[in-house]
Amino acid sequence: MERCDLLGQISEEEGILVRPYGTEAMRRVNRLVAYWMRAAGMSTRQDAIGNLIGRYEGTSEKTLVLASHLDSVRDAGRYDGPLGVMVALACVERLHERGERLPFAIEVVGFTDEEGLRFGTTYLGSSVYAGIFDEKLLGYTDPAGVTLADAVRDFGGEPGALAGAGRDGGDLIGYCEVHMEQGPVLERLGEPVGIVTGITGESSVKIEFLGAAGHAGTVPMEGRKDALCAAAEFVLAVEETAREEPGMVATVGHLSVHPSAHNVIPGRVRLGLDLRHQEDPVRERALRKLRERATETAAARGEECDWHVHQESRAAPTDPGLTALLERAVEELGYPIDRMPSGAGHDAAAVAAIAPIAMLFVRCHDGISHNPAESVQAEDAAVAVEVTSRFLELVAEDRCQKGIV
Amino acid sequence: MERCDLLGQISEEEGILVRPYGTEAMRRVNRLVAYWMRAAGMSTRQDAIGNLIGRYEGTSEKTLVLASHLDSVRDAGRYDGPLGVMVALACVERLHERGERLPFAIEVVGFTDEEGLRFGTTYLGSSVYAGIFDEKLLGYTDPAGVTLADAVRDFGGEPGALAGAGRDGGDLIGYCEVHMEQGPVLERLGEPVGIVTGITGESSVKIEFLGAAGHAGTVPMEGRKDALCAAAEFVLAVEETAREEPGMVATVGHLSVHPSAHNVIPGRVRLGLDLRHQEDPVRERALRKLRERATETAAARGEECDWHVHQESRAAPTDPGLTALLERAVEELGYPIDRMPSGAGHDAAAVAAIAPIAMLFVRCHDGISHNPAESVQAEDAAVAVEVTSRFLELVAEDRCQKGIV
Repeated sequence: MERCDLLGQISEEEGILVRPYGTEAMRRVNRLVAYWMRAAGMSTRQDAIGNLIGRYEGTSEKTLVLASHLDSVRDAGRYDGPLGVMVALACVERLHERGERLPFAIEVVGFTDEEGLRFGTTYLGSSVYAGIFDEKLLGYTDPAGVTLADAVRDFGGEPGALAGAGRDGGDLIGYCEVHMEQGPVLERLGEPVGIVTGITGESSVKIEFLGAAGHAGTVPMEGRKDALCAAAEFVLAVEETAREEPGMVATVGHLSVHPSAHNVIPGRVRLGLDLRHQEDPVRERALRKLRERATETAAARGEECDWHVHQESRAAPTDPGLTALLERAVEELGYPIDRMPSGAGHDAAAVAAIAPIAMLFVRCHDGISHNPAESVQAEDAAVAVEVTSRFLELVAEDRCQKGIV
Repeated sequence: MERCDLLGQISEEEGILVRPYGTEAMRRVNRLVAYWMRAAGMSTRQDAIGNLIGRYEGTSEKTLVLASHLDSVRDAGRYDGPLGVMVALACVERLHERGERLPFAIEVVGFTDEEGLRFGTTYLGSSVYAGIFDEKLLGYTDPAGVTLADAVRDFGGEPGALAGAGRDGGDLIGYCEVHMEQGPVLERLGEPVGIVTGITGESSVKIEFLGAAGHAGTVPMEGRKDALCAAAEFVLAVEETAREEPGMVATVGHLSVHPSAHNVIPGRVRLGLDLRHQEDPVRERALRKLRERATETAAARGEECDWHVHQESRAAPTDPGLTALLERAVEELGYPIDRMPSGAGHDAAAVAAIAPIAMLFVRCHDGISHNPAESVQAEDAAVAVEVTSRFLELVAEDRCQKGIV
């Protein structure tokens, strides 16, 4: 908990926590966490994009990964991301203090960009780690016009090497991520931890409505092509669509108006749609419907609409075998097994490409996340450390029995 | 026309025309126009806020004002504002070339801020000139956090003197403003100039919807307080209200979302409403209705709504006597009299506090304004110069007959 507090003070802006990819704040965080890793008996390195990787050797070459991310959204809380890395670190520290080696190495990874704050790309760090990085992202620019390629270079990485920098999954026996729930379920149930059944699929779409700017006083209402009015209709259609489909969430989180003056009719509006559902076909169907709505809305106003799917990730169910071991750890420690899907995306979804994944949620207050009021109790974090430590033992037993390690 | 081209190149940004109050671009424009004024036989000065005032003496102390503004919106055209000052300059030049003095002085004013781009205040320059400057505006800040008081000081003015810097109206026999129409009416009629019957009243309101930020993936739709959804409902209510009321225009020209990330539910949205109608009670009634709608929309979503009237100007009819002389000038030059209200605000509305006002519109292409595509034909500008010159003669005759000058 103290380490989460410390990391929460390392920010790109005074007064609020914001830690985007490739910044000085990320450099400082990587240095500090690497220091803690080495003190816990790990060797450390950074890969081609800047993921921080600590390795605690075992008695075989096989490897289990414990990970989460170290970047943050803007005006963030302290636990979304760092909590999982700190729980992993605590588990390794415990082994190191006892001088204990497991029949597999533990790799603790602090992914360098999960939130995608700077370039609008989620799972940036873990997609490189998992070898599923899409090279077209290298041309994406941040609000200041810096390309991802330049940001990677500036952060000490190699943009050209990203696509081939994926970890060879041959030695991986599994991946487990601890993360704060970011929702209200565990608090309502009164339980400290929960078992994740899968991560919802996500679509991120950039939409532009193109009307015609004009003088707010002289262009009569009937002659207008107000791009903000078209965008407003679309924002409400997004809300309606998600409300009608159980389990779906859809959000327009950013929207910018051009030219943005109080006496000028908006000629262009850009907005971002985030749509999630645990079943890919349901998500894809809703997306098609919303695209039609956007096109119709624009056409009815004599405007144009541009629709660009910025990023998509398929739903990722957790691995039944690995998850069964995580459930046993929870049960043995005297807690009930509460299973829930994850509405938020997590790095586990990317790593699922190369390893079986499991995830443990930790209770938070009031479901608040992506907000400085994010709150996790020390007792609940301690339960997560106990569960993960027991999980490591159970994996060791299981893999030995099966002759894998 | 060449002078409008030259002024159009003096901008705060490369590639687009933007000339906000108190900037280096405004300093350069004032210097250049003052140079032209002196070459046309005028004495020049700047008042306490930086309005540029050129005076061509007459045979009495009485004064007629010909004016418009020299600032611009962002990504502006070349004619909105400068055209009127250049037409006035051409009229005085013509008198000066002939060595002719009228029975009254002509004051040509280039108001330094009409658009209010920097501080969101319209008629800033002319309100000081007319002695109706509201001192509370001194605390308003620009997007960089600079107060109006500091900007005035930096521009060589005296913030403390603004409220008392109004021109004594005792010597004023009238005010006439030439301005591009900024609407499509004259082009449709096929006429170069039109007579303005009055300037619509305007309300500028700043509205904030306050919901709750949250994670776009984990907060279910039913638990959300999405400030952008509330704002979207309001934007559409604004459009509907104006569409239902003949002669009304209403615009949400800017809107900003906080925290503005693709995966965060908008917790706060700020937007600006611009509402205009030629009858003040109709405008005031619509404003009350929209305020109720905003409050209801917010309440229905468990959100809050803040409503702040930023600026208001009452409708200003033009003076019948002065306008009759302007109409006679148009008629004598062989053009029909086309009367129209002005949906856009103009400095004349502020100056109406101290002098009878008249306004002449000049045809523009396609009603386009506040846009680099603004277009006025040289032939139409020439008609405006002829009409204004003849108007000056008619005012001289009329005032002499009445024994005023």
